Amino acid sequence: MAAKENLRPGGRSARVQASVHQAVRALLVDMDRVDVTIPLVAARAGVTPSTIYRRWGDLQELLADVAVERLRPDMQPVDTGSGRGDLQAWAEQYAEEMSSGIGREIIRDVLAAQDNANACQCSAFTREQMQLLSNRALARGESFPTVDAVMDQVVAPIVYRILFDDAPSAERVRGLVAEVMTKA
Amino acid sequence: MAAKENLRPGGRSARVQASVHQAVRALLVDMDRVDVTIPLVAARAGVTPSTIYRRWGDLQELLADVAVERLRPDMQPVDTGSGRGDLQAWAEQYAEEMSSGIGREIIRDVLAAQDNANACQCSAFTREQMQLLSNRALARGESFPTVDAVMDQVVAPIVYRILFDDAPSAERVRGLVAEVMTKA
Repeated sequence: MAAKENLRPGGRSARVQASVHQAVRALLVDMDRVDVTIPLVAARAGVTPSTIYRRWGDLQELLADVAVERLRPDMQPVDTGSGRGDLQAWAEQYAEEMSSGIGREIIRDVLAAQDNANACQCSAFTREQMQLLSNRALARGESFPTVDAVMDQVVAPIVYRILFDDAPSAERVRGLVAEVMTKA
Repeated sequence: MAAKENLRPGGRSARVQASVHQAVRALLVDMDRVDVTIPLVAARAGVTPSTIYRRWGDLQELLADVAVERLRPDMQPVDTGSGRGDLQAWAEQYAEEMSSGIGREIIRDVLAAQDNANACQCSAFTREQMQLLSNRALARGESFPTVDAVMDQVVAPIVYRILFDDAPSAERVRGLVAEVMTKA
């Protein structure tokens, strides 16, 4: 039950959300994740704990909501002049960011919530980026794999290895990209 | 810091571990996961809470340890007479089990632990099964993809979709298997 309503920018709800998110991010800088509690977040955000319980339900949902916001892409993928170059640059940066300590913690927080909506939002962000690379490539007259193929053959192996195995090397990431491109 | 020592079967440590695991599984049948606490587990297992804290550190590590045991394969993969048939049967069953409510909860518990060892153990179980399918296929004189290729192109997309998207349909799972087999 993460906050899903459409918030009017600058409205009271949006201000509460921004302030609570900000408080969580600040606490996570100063303390271990296991020591963060809703009363601490509330005190830092200047709201009552019940405001947080009402909107987010519990701490895990709140942490998942904050984690998803951190996964929201804050830049356009780099334009290298070719679809293959774009995908390779994107995949290398993605693998690097996600396999960092903070990247792993964000993924873990997103998945810890009982509600699957946050996790689906993460893959929706990635799909949008892949669609953008695809549109760019097609506009240049290049071929490009389907978004589903990129998700299954590049994104999924990167994330699976980060979560369950050793983080993929840059060489392996390039191999995944090369392989999906040969089938485009 | 999940219990990693090699336990002498029937020894005191092994008996404590079996009894604590059993208590966790029984509690998870009766109550919500968020209501399970170490004192409750200890009472049910007939050990002191400090025994549990000493061995597992915290509740998340204990739940992860129990979850990994539930992921340990309890049967040989079905022998269908061909490598492709074996992989397809295995992948369909795996996707079905992992996308069930209990499968998702197990994956979540494994990933929630700070220590990555449990998560790596899950992919090690899967790798062993894939190696077994490969050995069987090669012994029949068939070709079979590398274990890495199966992990990246069949296992990873199944798990990624279960965690971050909609569970893959049986048709999509068959498509993943067909594709990795054409490259074997």
